[in-house]
Amino acid sequence: MKTHPFDEALRLEAAGADQPDTWLGASSPAYWNIVGPFGGTTPATALRAILQHPALLGEPIALTVNYASALTEEPFSITARPVRTNRSTQHWTVALSQPDAAGAMSVLMTATAVTAARRETWSTNDTPMPAARFSDAAPRLRSSSAEWTRRYDLRAVRGMIPQVWDGSGQGGDEGSLTQLWVRDDPPRPLDFASLAAMADVFYPRVWLRRATRVPAGTVSITTYFHADSRQLAQTGEGYLLGQARGQAFRNGFFDQTAQLWNEAGTLLATSNQIVYYKE
Amino acid sequence: MKTHPFDEALRLEAAGADQPDTWLGASSPAYWNIVGPFGGTTPATALRAILQHPALLGEPIALTVNYASALTEEPFSITARPVRTNRSTQHWTVALSQPDAAGAMSVLMTATAVTAARRETWSTNDTPMPAARFSDAAPRLRSSSAEWTRRYDLRAVRGMIPQVWDGSGQGGDEGSLTQLWVRDDPPRPLDFASLAAMADVFYPRVWLRRATRVPAGTVSITTYFHADSRQLAQTGEGYLLGQARGQAFRNGFFDQTAQLWNEAGTLLATSNQIVYYKE
Repeated sequence: MKTHPFDEALRLEAAGADQPDTWLGASSPAYWNIVGPFGGTTPATALRAILQHPALLGEPIALTVNYASALTEEPFSITARPVRTNRSTQHWTVALSQPDAAGAMSVLMTATAVTAARRETWSTNDTPMPAARFSDAAPRLRSSSAEWTRRYDLRAVRGMIPQVWDGSGQGGDEGSLTQLWVRDDPPRPLDFASLAAMADVFYPRVWLRRATRVPAGTVSITTYFHADSRQLAQTGEGYLLGQARGQAFRNGFFDQTAQLWNEAGTLLATSNQIVYYKE
Repeated sequence: MKTHPFDEALRLEAAGADQPDTWLGASSPAYWNIVGPFGGTTPATALRAILQHPALLGEPIALTVNYASALTEEPFSITARPVRTNRSTQHWTVALSQPDAAGAMSVLMTATAVTAARRETWSTNDTPMPAARFSDAAPRLRSSSAEWTRRYDLRAVRGMIPQVWDGSGQGGDEGSLTQLWVRDDPPRPLDFASLAAMADVFYPRVWLRRATRVPAGTVSITTYFHADSRQLAQTGEGYLLGQARGQAFRNGFFDQTAQLWNEAGTLLATSNQIVYYKE
């Protein structure tokens, strides 16, 4: 069986017995963005490093990734350390580095994560999936300049990238709202790493809100995992409905809230990011 | 002039010239919760360590704090390192430690933060403040068992702690929604540290949603600062309107979204946390 391009992109090799927390990897051209790799592969890589650590306790609950600088096409090293292990929760710090121009290792990403052994409790889904029916006739979204957009089957529901950059963006409840269906292409059974990546498939809210294409890039993203591996397995290769919206745009930074439901209507993950923009 | 109890609680002393990133502090009895200090003082302490670091660039944009274990009343040490400084943004990692029973240092909190030199850009407040008028006649919220609740002037608007724990909690849009006015008591001009603390003044959403008082505690909180220091100064000692809501409650963890506006209606901060609960 051919390895899925997402698993190729996330392949990590142990750095050696003297560095038990460190793995070596490389950005994949298959998920390349305009400058550097697709932002979603970075949290996925952080999670992969944690999930293959021999000391892992439980499953991911929370993950925060800070983008300190754009990765180059060079190999990288990533270190994931379990800094505290409690009875049912575990706390992780992660750092990703590449050699700089002078050959010294330079930090390009920092992350923290919490994993936990979940127990069955009273549960409820308080944010119902918006009414939206998947249609195979809906056009696929692709960017000719961003290779990674070919790795996802993205179908518009509302709030797509403006066709005309005429500054006509509006406020109000739907001013910065995007809803879309998403799954890997080729299809791939959902797991924590791919869910973490899909939390970042939305283009910058400021483009929609202003109908103006200003430079923009994620600075920090936090994703909470509401699903366990059993619910991810039930989701399988199905589409997720993703929703994203901005709350405030102020002097160079805006935030973006996001939700991801599976077709059965289960809220699998909620995510927030803060994004730099210019002008 | 008497030092404000919040500044007393956040007092940090340099650990020494050989540890330039490390400060020593202690939890304040004035902000004590049932077990350990009020959760809001921990992000505030992380921010204080960053803001008094001589290498600081700009002002806080994003802060994530992970609660690895409850602090005791013993002194602690906190280390804030600028791991990458770019032209206009700076990335920080923070860790707080206390000696464990055997005397070895044990990590109780990890954090990451981004600070940035902001520039004036196109800006908009896309989340209007909910209609709510401050009334001095509204009763103050206090818990007889949690000392920290006396350090805030908290006035109910809606979604207060249930008076009867009868399991009658409801779903729907307002099922887990709380709105309240908040300011320091005694009043204190708003700054980044106090704003970070106020993002955590909401009691656990699961109590409201279920009208059942189950054990619960924050595992990780992320706050985005939309205001700069000029806007905080304009807010001064005024009340903030705070709003909190849960999106999903699943097998031991729920999330909580929060927004904080000043009386002029400016969205100063948005915050998200993931909270452990039992049963």
